[in-house]
Amino acid sequence: MADVNALVSKLGSLGFNDPPVEHAAAENVQQWADVLSGAAGLPSNYVLTKSLIFKPKQPKSESIAPVVVIAANETETSPKAIGAELKLKDLRFASDEVLKDIFQTAKGSVSPFALAQVPQEHVGNVRVVIDKSLLDNTDALIAFHPLVNTRTVFITGETLQSYIRSIDGLDKVTVMDFAAQSASSATAAANKKPAAAKPAAAPKVEEATGASLLGVTASKEGDFPKWYNQVLTRSEMLDYYDVSGCYIVRPLGYFVWQQIQEFFDAGIRSLGVRNCYFPMFVSSRVLEREKDHIEGFAPEVAWVTKAGSKDLEEPLAIRPTSETVMYPYFAKWIRSYRDLPLKINQWCSVVRWEFKNPQPFLRTREFLWQEGHCAHFTKDEAMTEVHDILALYRRVYEELLAVPVIEGVKSEKEKFAGGVATTTVEGFIPTTGRGIQGGTSHYLGQNFSKMFNVVVEDPESTEAERPKIHVHQTSWGLSTRTIGVMVMIHGDDKGLVLPPRVAETQVIIIPCGLTVKSSDEDRRRIADACLNVEARLKMAGVRAESDLRENYTPGFKYSHWEVRGVPLRLEVGPKDLDKQSVLSVRRDNADKASMSLDGLEESVKIMLINIQDTMLSKARATLDSRVKLVLKWEDFVPTLNSKCLTLIPWCEREECEDQIKDRSSRDSLGDEPEDDKAPSMGAKSLCLPFKQPENPAIVPGETKCIQCGENAKRYALFGRSY
Amino acid sequence: MADVNALVSKLGSLGFNDPPVEHAAAENVQQWADVLSGAAGLPSNYVLTKSLIFKPKQPKSESIAPVVVIAANETETSPKAIGAELKLKDLRFASDEVLKDIFQTAKGSVSPFALAQVPQEHVGNVRVVIDKSLLDNTDALIAFHPLVNTRTVFITGETLQSYIRSIDGLDKVTVMDFAAQSASSATAAANKKPAAAKPAAAPKVEEATGASLLGVTASKEGDFPKWYNQVLTRSEMLDYYDVSGCYIVRPLGYFVWQQIQEFFDAGIRSLGVRNCYFPMFVSSRVLEREKDHIEGFAPEVAWVTKAGSKDLEEPLAIRPTSETVMYPYFAKWIRSYRDLPLKINQWCSVVRWEFKNPQPFLRTREFLWQEGHCAHFTKDEAMTEVHDILALYRRVYEELLAVPVIEGVKSEKEKFAGGVATTTVEGFIPTTGRGIQGGTSHYLGQNFSKMFNVVVEDPESTEAERPKIHVHQTSWGLSTRTIGVMVMIHGDDKGLVLPPRVAETQVIIIPCGLTVKSSDEDRRRIADACLNVEARLKMAGVRAESDLRENYTPGFKYSHWEVRGVPLRLEVGPKDLDKQSVLSVRRDNADKASMSLDGLEESVKIMLINIQDTMLSKARATLDSRVKLVLKWEDFVPTLNSKCLTLIPWCEREECEDQIKDRSSRDSLGDEPEDDKAPSMGAKSLCLPFKQPENPAIVPGETKCIQCGENAKRYALFGRSY
Repeated sequence: MADVNALVSKLGSLGFNDPPVEHAAAENVQQWADVLSGAAGLPSNYVLTKSLIFKPKQPKSESIAPVVVIAANETETSPKAIGAELKLKDLRFASDEVLKDIFQTAKGSVSPFALAQVPQEHVGNVRVVIDKSLLDNTDALIAFHPLVNTRTVFITGETLQSYIRSIDGLDKVTVMDFAAQSASSATAAANKKPAAAKPAAAPKVEEATGASLLGVTASKEGDFPKWYNQVLTRSEMLDYYDVSGCYIVRPLGYFVWQQIQEFFDAGIRSLGVRNCYFPMFVSSRVLEREKDHIEGFAPEVAWVTKAGSKDLEEPLAIRPTSETVMYPYFAKWIRSYRDLPLKINQWCSVVRWEFKNPQPFLRTREFLWQEGHCAHFTKDEAMTEVHDILALYRRVYEELLAVPVIEGVKSEKEKFAGGVATTTVEGFIPTTGRGIQGGTSHYLGQNFSKMFNVVVEDPESTEAERPKIHVHQTSWGLSTRTIGVMVMIHGDDKGLVLPPRVAETQVIIIPCGLTVKSSDEDRRRIADACLNVEARLKMAGVRAESDLRENYTPGFKYSHWEVRGVPLRLEVGPKDLDKQSVLSVRRDNADKASMSLDGLEESVKIMLINIQDTMLSKARATLDSRVKLVLKWEDFVPTLNSKCLTLIPWCEREECEDQIKDRSSRDSLGDEPEDDKAPSMGAKSLCLPFKQPENPAIVPGETKCIQCGENAKRYALFGRSY
Repeated sequence: MADVNALVSKLGSLGFNDPPVEHAAAENVQQWADVLSGAAGLPSNYVLTKSLIFKPKQPKSESIAPVVVIAANETETSPKAIGAELKLKDLRFASDEVLKDIFQTAKGSVSPFALAQVPQEHVGNVRVVIDKSLLDNTDALIAFHPLVNTRTVFITGETLQSYIRSIDGLDKVTVMDFAAQSASSATAAANKKPAAAKPAAAPKVEEATGASLLGVTASKEGDFPKWYNQVLTRSEMLDYYDVSGCYIVRPLGYFVWQQIQEFFDAGIRSLGVRNCYFPMFVSSRVLEREKDHIEGFAPEVAWVTKAGSKDLEEPLAIRPTSETVMYPYFAKWIRSYRDLPLKINQWCSVVRWEFKNPQPFLRTREFLWQEGHCAHFTKDEAMTEVHDILALYRRVYEELLAVPVIEGVKSEKEKFAGGVATTTVEGFIPTTGRGIQGGTSHYLGQNFSKMFNVVVEDPESTEAERPKIHVHQTSWGLSTRTIGVMVMIHGDDKGLVLPPRVAETQVIIIPCGLTVKSSDEDRRRIADACLNVEARLKMAGVRAESDLRENYTPGFKYSHWEVRGVPLRLEVGPKDLDKQSVLSVRRDNADKASMSLDGLEESVKIMLINIQDTMLSKARATLDSRVKLVLKWEDFVPTLNSKCLTLIPWCEREECEDQIKDRSSRDSLGDEPEDDKAPSMGAKSLCLPFKQPENPAIVPGETKCIQCGENAKRYALFGRSY
């Protein structure tokens, strides 16, 4: 805990004697404004501030030279402008280590007063930038947190300057006119670049108080790719890895996967599927046995050619999927129709060396999945299974991840290489308006069984040499992509939002309402109450944790667990306890409610179910509103551009699908070339939904395909996609 | 079901009118002798027979030409001798397909009478060999199963010959004098090879009735490697794969692994360990960061150098273990002592391209395991965890797999490359007298944290620049080797023996006591009773299955499930049902007991616990009797040769360990060179057991190392090992 009293007395020595105003913890500027609005003893006119710490790009051998910027909250403090002013390269927000090493401050507590805590050997390297507008505006006092975010001091510009001057050795202080800078750089930009036909979406400048350096600073709507990366990394779901296209699934992310595994594994076991494990290596001979199939995968196969310092006699592929790995053994194991059905599944990782831009969870070179492979005597049995599995996939999305999906069958062009038909659950990312394949269940027909000679004798035959029947096969897979879809759909500008069923921590319990004046007994009482609530919830099967860390403010903790998506927060304060209650705060919609300690377990469980339901309904409402019936071509690209998917009457011809992709791409891009590494601007068919629109229904021989004018067969879901 | 009545009438037409004798199902010759000994209406003198079907090596284009051998059970029917007699190459037991395709017979029902079922187009290719002794011994009748193993017919040699002659088109019949053949080949062998100093253990000739072609024919004591392979493949735990050193873990084997996962995962979760997944690829730069460590693994690392048709810019290793994969991220994630302990684990596969002889589960090029990696602030915390994990490993072996282990610490020579200390659980395979490392839990000290700069600031320090403290790390791993050890310890000559806790099917329910005369109602009654028992047991949480397959005899089914190691068999027959009971037969010790249907669930559960306990106690008694205190060097190799491990007073010097290995190897082998691919004949230290012998206890400064005479520090467990 920073020494607030020392600071207050220091300010007193500078002629400033008003005590700090106390209030509830303020996590960010918005909260700060809110909590102050209800507080007593405020000055009539004040300006909220932000304190930012940057670090320029420097040779590693040099001492770190951080830049502390003290500015009005409203001021646009572009790092570029500051760098230009100070002649420093590549200003970035300082790392947590810098905050801790140099400013000796817990995150969330950065303020000008942290300057007093810089050790003597560093102080000479620190630069301070003061927003000129703070000093100019003599009508208003300047609001700062005095090292904790439950208090605010209001000081004059003069006091601020005296304070900074009072720090020994701190002599690089700049007063900067951000308004002028901003105006001039806007002019520069305007001069440099002629007005573009369509202005590029301007990425919002990252602005943050100290606390939110750990949080998500990019906005979901403003810069979705950056937001996605920030949410994944700052929630600690995932981290980047030093092999491109590979990522580390951290415990928070892996927990989600384990929940999916548990649910799905029980589901398939009840269908009679048994788990197994096949080697990850495939000989090229076996891999290349099914031609259509291998054509689909060959360009992405990773090859092992050496072991130790020796070359292998024959290079070995790492499985991109296991059809050709497993089916030679199906041929061996299946001797009679009595050995059918053979149903196996494995949980493993596969490798597909994609050269497109990788994206965590969605497109990675190694990913975790399950792959099921079954052989049946009849097509009917096989098809039943294909649909049973698809239903389980839908349930994983809807019941576990609160993600609605559209079930259907893939077009000929989009089906699995080497199979007969591919059924799919398709998801939708509203922020980009793109569809995303969620999981596929294939009917392989007899294609592979013919290739690998998986046969049984016809038991009905009375001939001496009974004719051989090729088995009917299925394969089906679901990957960690599920997690990425969930994050994209539910996350918000504060970070991750986890559906309770897959959240490692479902309830976080945080002590609050304590001040410097609280007695040790008060603290103990609150801590005990938190632990008691935790124990009760755990006993009731709720994954609950208390955050009793001593050196962090409640606000910091709120933020910490919000970034990590914990579905429900319980705040335990002295006033709550007096009323035998706690305050519950939902992550999904920020709803607050007092919750009695009496029957708390039941209330929490109901609330968690409620959160899960709300998340699904909300996502479903969005999906429903964004799937548009499009009955003429002219509306097609505009509908895509309004971030929607389309349902169109379609002829189902492969050639037409190619044309739809080309035309929509051209209409979207104009003359700009398509970016190979970015997702395509052209639309493709996502599926032929099982549930077909009925108004208007397709009239065979009458309804025409909206692209080519041939007879339409069914409505198809088309859209841009991942 | 074969047409027994047709056969009986056929025999009648050949002048043989005695009805078959009915009896309980006989699975093998021993059982056959047993069930007959209690039956009524037996001839005074008879010979039990075996019927074997072989197939020579043939070009694939040729029609299959099987050889049916009808012999007295006592006759040694060496395939080699038969092949020599018939001038056929490489006679092998015919595959199941041949049995079915050509003899139209369910397995377990091979007899001379199957010859009548050979389709006309095949009959010309079939050769029959009749044991001359059967025809010579006119004092005795010859006993055969008439297509089912619940009956026996007794016929004369003449009737047998008439029967065979009566089959149209079957004309290649040879009467063979096995006794003469055997004598002459023994002479030939004696002439060819001068008497060796030590006769090699003669592998028992495989002999089997039709049924056991699916079963295990090798003997555990007689030919252990072959037995092990047969048990694994015929139980369907595992199959061979077309990439050398890689194996398919089939559902029965994978189920065991999942039980281990479930138990261990819950165990580590309660220790605060969280699961995650790191990529399987490692850049060479990172892999080679810790020199001692990489030295241990480099020769076995598999390298990916190509993706699709392109060479990678930098080759990527497939992880042999993940220390160097993970610890750069530990350095990133651990910012403060408050981030400690960091405890993660992953379930994955790793690749070590061993060039020694691979062995399923024990030494494979890819294997499944878990690897835990933790960072602690203090050595004490780290050591506590090392021991907590070791205790979990011990419990996996003892409580799940019923395998006793010896806990201890590895010698300097045997410890983990790059670590400070390795604790271990050591198993023992009585059949070979070899030790086997079961699982290891390492204290890595600060070796890796220094290499990867995993540091926190000393929170106790009052200096402005707080000194950095390197974290104390642990890593620990348990692999599918566990399964191999379990199989080797518990399996017997009938196949796998599974401890109930890890058996996918704990109880198999088999209808029996039905004969051709049983009414449909009887059959239904028995089948219903089986299903009812199954349902009751399942409800009670017992993994029970009924085997109601119609075209297999009870004996065939017994064998089928015995090979697969199912711990308990319940036989449900009409007489049992009349008494409201079933007959239980234990797999581990063949104990039979009547079990009342009243309270069956409870009785079965108790029985399963009992089986689990008995298996562990039996294995522990064996282990205890085979760990010998050896107090002088002269006894060392003789003790190893008697298939024991030794506990010796030891100096703990690496040089001495090398000498022990060399000396024991030389003493064992004499002048023969060591076989690089076989397990070593030299002994190595397995561990320094935590539990030290006390009688006599080591007297420091007085007790000497038995090899070198230096002062002994502790007792060490030395032995030959895998």
